[in-house]
Amino acid sequence: MTVTEQPATTERSARIIRDNMFLHFTPHTGLTGDDIPVIVRGEGAYVYDAAGRRYLDGLAGLFAGQIGHGRDELAAAAARQTKELAYFPLWGYAHPTAIDLAERLAEAAPGELNRAFFTVSGGESVETAWKLIRQYFKATGRPTKHKVISRSLAYHGTSMGALSITGIPGAKSEFEPLVPSTMRVPHTNFYRATEHADDYAAFGLWAADRIEEAIVFEGAETVAAVFLEPVQNTGGCFVPPPNYFQRVREICDRHDVLLVSDETICAFGRIGYDFGAKRFGYQPDLITTAKGLTSGYAPLGVVMLGDRIMEPFLNGSTFLHGSTYGGHPVSCAVALANLDVIERENIYGHVLATEDAFRTTLEKLYDLPIVGDVRGTGYFYAVELVKDRTTKEKFTDEDATRILKGHVSKALFEAGLHCRADDRAEPVIQLAPPLICEQAQFDEMEQALRFALTGAQELL
Amino acid sequence: MTVTEQPATTERSARIIRDNMFLHFTPHTGLTGDDIPVIVRGEGAYVYDAAGRRYLDGLAGLFAGQIGHGRDELAAAAARQTKELAYFPLWGYAHPTAIDLAERLAEAAPGELNRAFFTVSGGESVETAWKLIRQYFKATGRPTKHKVISRSLAYHGTSMGALSITGIPGAKSEFEPLVPSTMRVPHTNFYRATEHADDYAAFGLWAADRIEEAIVFEGAETVAAVFLEPVQNTGGCFVPPPNYFQRVREICDRHDVLLVSDETICAFGRIGYDFGAKRFGYQPDLITTAKGLTSGYAPLGVVMLGDRIMEPFLNGSTFLHGSTYGGHPVSCAVALANLDVIERENIYGHVLATEDAFRTTLEKLYDLPIVGDVRGTGYFYAVELVKDRTTKEKFTDEDATRILKGHVSKALFEAGLHCRADDRAEPVIQLAPPLICEQAQFDEMEQALRFALTGAQELL
Repeated sequence: MTVTEQPATTERSARIIRDNMFLHFTPHTGLTGDDIPVIVRGEGAYVYDAAGRRYLDGLAGLFAGQIGHGRDELAAAAARQTKELAYFPLWGYAHPTAIDLAERLAEAAPGELNRAFFTVSGGESVETAWKLIRQYFKATGRPTKHKVISRSLAYHGTSMGALSITGIPGAKSEFEPLVPSTMRVPHTNFYRATEHADDYAAFGLWAADRIEEAIVFEGAETVAAVFLEPVQNTGGCFVPPPNYFQRVREICDRHDVLLVSDETICAFGRIGYDFGAKRFGYQPDLITTAKGLTSGYAPLGVVMLGDRIMEPFLNGSTFLHGSTYGGHPVSCAVALANLDVIERENIYGHVLATEDAFRTTLEKLYDLPIVGDVRGTGYFYAVELVKDRTTKEKFTDEDATRILKGHVSKALFEAGLHCRADDRAEPVIQLAPPLICEQAQFDEMEQALRFALTGAQELL
Repeated sequence: MTVTEQPATTERSARIIRDNMFLHFTPHTGLTGDDIPVIVRGEGAYVYDAAGRRYLDGLAGLFAGQIGHGRDELAAAAARQTKELAYFPLWGYAHPTAIDLAERLAEAAPGELNRAFFTVSGGESVETAWKLIRQYFKATGRPTKHKVISRSLAYHGTSMGALSITGIPGAKSEFEPLVPSTMRVPHTNFYRATEHADDYAAFGLWAADRIEEAIVFEGAETVAAVFLEPVQNTGGCFVPPPNYFQRVREICDRHDVLLVSDETICAFGRIGYDFGAKRFGYQPDLITTAKGLTSGYAPLGVVMLGDRIMEPFLNGSTFLHGSTYGGHPVSCAVALANLDVIERENIYGHVLATEDAFRTTLEKLYDLPIVGDVRGTGYFYAVELVKDRTTKEKFTDEDATRILKGHVSKALFEAGLHCRADDRAEPVIQLAPPLICEQAQFDEMEQALRFALTGAQELL
């Protein structure tokens, strides 16, 4: 534990948090301000609060910080670019860092995805992709194709277009009506499978076939795209069953529907590859991503597309879309420095070399009866909690609130672990640590979880 | 003119732009890559291209760069914060730079607007405000109030929620259907007034009353908010007539409709005040802003709100909204450094002291018959072009394309001025230079415009 050089004045911070801030996804009822941790410093896989207490950053900030905190060379890149050209838009202009980054991403992206539309975030990438797809189909003589299919519980962003694609009813109901004509299909939580529960491969094909069913229900001539994460985050790291994406690709081809791989979380090493689609061997028509591209050091996202989607825009159509900060020069400079670090330190190789050890360490938790399922891949895991492992009995909503919010979240934090206890669906603990972690950090995570979940069991 | 130290390899850049980039709001049909200027460096009010040519940044990048390019202390702030804590989310946590910035904005914002919800951009601020307003009315027993009124041509962003509020049909038609239930009222272009064309004050009240008409047409119990810029950008700097906003405020109060001041452009000095509403003496219920908050050096936006809107969220309701990069620690550090510069150099005072000279200089252009109207305030001006000043005869669409795209844009750039020739409505040249400009830059802008418009007249 280290005492920070400049401790935040706790009383003053608490007052400002309480009186002058509106935090994200945070209940403010009864909030006093000193109940909100003030994070002041980061170093490697750890962050420090205003009192100098150290936490393992088990969520990489928010699924973003691939190379960990405090990298001098990213700070230097940001400072250098800020002095050189702090800002210029990509509206009819270009600048060197966006050019360099576009080339690098075009070389890396799978298959024919050779073109980058820069955005400021994953949500803006999703907005951009949907708008692009809608215009693409209008420009190529199929103007009625505009709807989008996504999966139950899947999170794709909070701006109204992205939110319409998001599959979490509780995150949408207060904000309806949204953009019409999106619909949900099942996710791939095999642990809770109600169909083909004894056959993983059959379950996967059944889940994929539900996409075809949705297309047929709506009329293929009205359906534009399917948005899928390689590994779905919300609900707790739903990995794709064998041949799931291959079947989805066939269905999309059959019905002239585009496959968008939303890799806001899964790209840039989270599951051991630069692009998540490569891990599972499928070819998307577009990729939306953000977060790991800069390791969170600066806001940046991108949509990758190929010649097929670009064709009408090279032949008469203009895409009237953009944003002030998409492809910000400093963000692109930071991304380039981040990709340099990832390459030099062989971060993807490190994830692939150590992911089994991470899994094995987390699976030790199976000796706790509250642990129902440990699932995920790469450095991206979820632990689903149950009342009874044998029967897989679920928590009631009341249990989930009492145990997750009342105990687990606090206990994890007390044990020095920043991660997420999520009760938007079945209760899960989500882990997505920086990709520089080693066995020591895997053990710390396991121990913090053991501490918090042992206490939780006593409350059941 | 200065030759840059590291000139971009023009041939390589052109190839990447052509083959690997998708630029914002840019036609790619026939694009060769070397027709896109590559901006490599900025210093004060000027930017430099890859060949070392200098341009006056007459648009402050994109209405953002209040304090000009190349400020060492903003680079230092970015580097310092990147090393200290490059990223942490505001989801249930806080960090020192967001805390300091929230306090500063709460002190500055007009009236009771004492609370900051941080975002990453102006568009995200608009999305956030609309979602907040929808939940506010549901939480306070008026669940049917969800619609939004905005003005013809007004630009509020490009994500689907913000785009639904935007009033530019051509920027929306390819992307329909959008979020339902927004409607447009007239803007305040008195130069093109068809009602009360001889009485500015009466015209303003007429335009304001059209908001009441729209509320009544829809049913006040369904209308949530009116989104208005202090000075509307698109269409060309429509300033509010006398008492326009006072009348709008009365109408909003009468019908329980919230007034949102979208100050993405107009805050932080563009029109001489920290917040644009102060210039025109009205009290909004929410302010959405971005751009000038960081002078564009880093992506950041904010929604300011007060106790009235916050009340239900302190008493049981939770706002399930947020974004990864809203309130990014580095962006907040950059904003604080930017506000320090603005304060130390008395930037708002400088704008107020020199705005008349700026206007007077631009009004010299009235000796060109193509100049129909010079309008704006602060450092925010538009020049509307006409075929005949006496009759105010408009350009045909064909003229506008031929003259603006074919000549004016290129000639301005050749003359060393970055600004915008916009033909989304009547053709206008838009000027929003850095707020550090002096008479020398006013003269440069006038001379570049004179050069470009003299040539344009010969094409009429």
